[in-house]
Amino acid sequence: MSRELHLADLHGSLADPLLDAMTFLNEVTGRYPDAVSFAPGRPYEEFFDPADIPGYLETYLRHLREERKLTEHQIRREVFQYGRTKGLIAPLIAGALAADEGIDADPEALVVTVGAQEGMLLVLRALCAGPDDVLLVSSPCYVGVTGAARLLDLTVHPVPEAGPDGGLDPGALAAAVRELRAAGKCPRACYVVPDFANPSGASMDEAARRRLLAAAEQSGVLLIEDNPYGFFGRTAAARPTLKALDGDRGNVVYLGSFAKTCFPGARVGYLVADQRVRAPDGRTTLLADELAKLKSMTTVNTSALAQAVIGGMLLAGGLRLRAANEPARRFYARNMDTLLAALEAALGGVPGVSWNHPDGGFFAVVTVPFRADARALDDCARKHGVLWTPMDGFHPGGGGEHQLRLSCSYLTPDQITDGVRRLADFVKERLPQGG
Amino acid sequence: MSRELHLADLHGSLADPLLDAMTFLNEVTGRYPDAVSFAPGRPYEEFFDPADIPGYLETYLRHLREERKLTEHQIRREVFQYGRTKGLIAPLIAGALAADEGIDADPEALVVTVGAQEGMLLVLRALCAGPDDVLLVSSPCYVGVTGAARLLDLTVHPVPEAGPDGGLDPGALAAAVRELRAAGKCPRACYVVPDFANPSGASMDEAARRRLLAAAEQSGVLLIEDNPYGFFGRTAAARPTLKALDGDRGNVVYLGSFAKTCFPGARVGYLVADQRVRAPDGRTTLLADELAKLKSMTTVNTSALAQAVIGGMLLAGGLRLRAANEPARRFYARNMDTLLAALEAALGGVPGVSWNHPDGGFFAVVTVPFRADARALDDCARKHGVLWTPMDGFHPGGGGEHQLRLSCSYLTPDQITDGVRRLADFVKERLPQGG
Repeated sequence: MSRELHLADLHGSLADPLLDAMTFLNEVTGRYPDAVSFAPGRPYEEFFDPADIPGYLETYLRHLREERKLTEHQIRREVFQYGRTKGLIAPLIAGALAADEGIDADPEALVVTVGAQEGMLLVLRALCAGPDDVLLVSSPCYVGVTGAARLLDLTVHPVPEAGPDGGLDPGALAAAVRELRAAGKCPRACYVVPDFANPSGASMDEAARRRLLAAAEQSGVLLIEDNPYGFFGRTAAARPTLKALDGDRGNVVYLGSFAKTCFPGARVGYLVADQRVRAPDGRTTLLADELAKLKSMTTVNTSALAQAVIGGMLLAGGLRLRAANEPARRFYARNMDTLLAALEAALGGVPGVSWNHPDGGFFAVVTVPFRADARALDDCARKHGVLWTPMDGFHPGGGGEHQLRLSCSYLTPDQITDGVRRLADFVKERLPQGG
Repeated sequence: MSRELHLADLHGSLADPLLDAMTFLNEVTGRYPDAVSFAPGRPYEEFFDPADIPGYLETYLRHLREERKLTEHQIRREVFQYGRTKGLIAPLIAGALAADEGIDADPEALVVTVGAQEGMLLVLRALCAGPDDVLLVSSPCYVGVTGAARLLDLTVHPVPEAGPDGGLDPGALAAAVRELRAAGKCPRACYVVPDFANPSGASMDEAARRRLLAAAEQSGVLLIEDNPYGFFGRTAAARPTLKALDGDRGNVVYLGSFAKTCFPGARVGYLVADQRVRAPDGRTTLLADELAKLKSMTTVNTSALAQAVIGGMLLAGGLRLRAANEPARRFYARNMDTLLAALEAALGGVPGVSWNHPDGGFFAVVTVPFRADARALDDCARKHGVLWTPMDGFHPGGGGEHQLRLSCSYLTPDQITDGVRRLADFVKERLPQGG
């Protein structure tokens, strides 16, 4: 007879609705395979072809051979062995960051991570050390952040976004810091996605970014900038990242991901952490070196094979990933245009129903005059064949009960139009009668 | 002027000598590139060829096409997209476990992880929930385990091995459990490597394994069995894993790694966790499902690309990884034979100097009549051109100050013989004069 464990004896995160919500969403998606799904924040997959992988790998190996002048023995070691904890392709990533974002990053300040998620975990672990330390997060917030915090038993404090399209509110950050300090707490860092945030789709304008940096500098709170969607504006014009605006002032730890700009199946991301860390004996290291020490205890290295393929993709695009993603940008921009036009056509003028107007990215948020919770989702999937994500799970301090997230990245324009029609049928069915 | 952080404000693990030891070892290795290095526990790299990767990938894609009957669209999704948190190649791994180890694992009870290290982190996080929970570890113990525990602020309690070649002592486990319970603590799990442990090289015989399982069953402590080196005996005869001996009794969580049997650069490992977990509402899940929830907050998925290449390697070997590793086994066995013979030739009969006689694996331990610490290592590297690993860092409760670990996996027999000669010069130089 097999031993049985009790959930109540396991780590508290496992009984947290936060982690259950992910499982529930996966279950729902699996139960309605034919539904139009606005649920997953996945990139469109027709941009990828498995037949291209050997070519990218070969491009990277040729780079090692011809530009870095490695011998065949050294190449074998680079791709097959345990490698540097900080990663192999940091110089290539630094080159792309300079060209694409104007971020001047020392490759030594980079750590290549198993997706941005691992980067998040490392940064949270390093910065939040004691019971009074608090992680501030934009609210609504990506569950990967609040989930990682839960896994580490960290205290999370929400900082609201400024309206449906405004992104994180710098004034609200400053107020939260004051409030926490007054309560004897120590706010250490604030997680923010300035461009096309997941889940809200909201973006900060340049003035708000500068105010946020000023608030961070003044309060001593480090900004954790996550930028998975920055290339995917509805127009080609790029806004400066917080990291680029901050220059070498050290107020920002930058998290990058190749999941949307190359492909998710590589699981390669990175972080830039160029802050100096001073030990009691006076010696200094880079924060990246401290994070690498933690990484040696989470995953040891990021797959050298996956790094090699991503390195090959970077090289193939001349270390200009934004230009290489211009077809993807146009595709996602058309999808967002289609989504917003379809919402207007199907739900425009309906009392109590509204949505925001993201400048780009994968997500938009619809507000409805009824509870858009897991039960409503299940009902909508069964009766109308369309899936979305309830927003309440994204609010660590509560909220979002009447909102749903639509992801338009994974669908064709026709599917989006069809899906919004189904969604509108569901929404209208639930409106108060005779209104 | 860039912001400076203080190490004292960061998580305590970053100032722990445990994590610094890893950095120090890397530094020493980097400083003496021409030394014969018995330090790293790496597989020999001439077994790998980068030119083989596209073939393995193609083997996996053909399997998806021909045996799993996936369409090209589904194949693209499988290799490029975000995938199942528990992984893609669990059925192939389960097949190999059945053939190689006689372990009958339900693929649903497997989680494919970013190396065994991530598996360790997930298991420790799930099992150790509160301040009274204690993780028992073999002592000496692999630093990846004690380091992961430190990252999670867990309490670790050492359980000694039974002599230089005996492996974890089942009686000592039972005694430690009694002692901890009497002190109001809750021992939850015990980490053990039954075959050719890192760092000691020691192995448990079958009788000791059965006693250990009985002690675990009786005490309710879960065994975390880590088996990276099991294929590499000095003879081809395999001993049964704890997991195989335990059958379906649920006393063992099994951690597997392809780092030594395929290649480290893939960063693919797995865990088998078939224990039932009962929630307060009576519903049950598999422990693997709970661990997957945590994984969604550490790395989201294991690289699908890396899984595909490992899957191709498994398929290419007919899901018999032990047979595919027979050339590697013979290579490592000859290296261990060479190491032990060289030690006998160079240091046999020297008073106060002894070593153990591992049945296989990568490591042996030499005891010397002086402190074999970081300072001694640096001196040895500078004067004699040979590197090894001090054992003191592997003892969470102290110990090992007069011992050094020799890894023979990464060298040729000639290098081993040469290295042991250099080591003997160093040891003899440090012996008490006129003894």
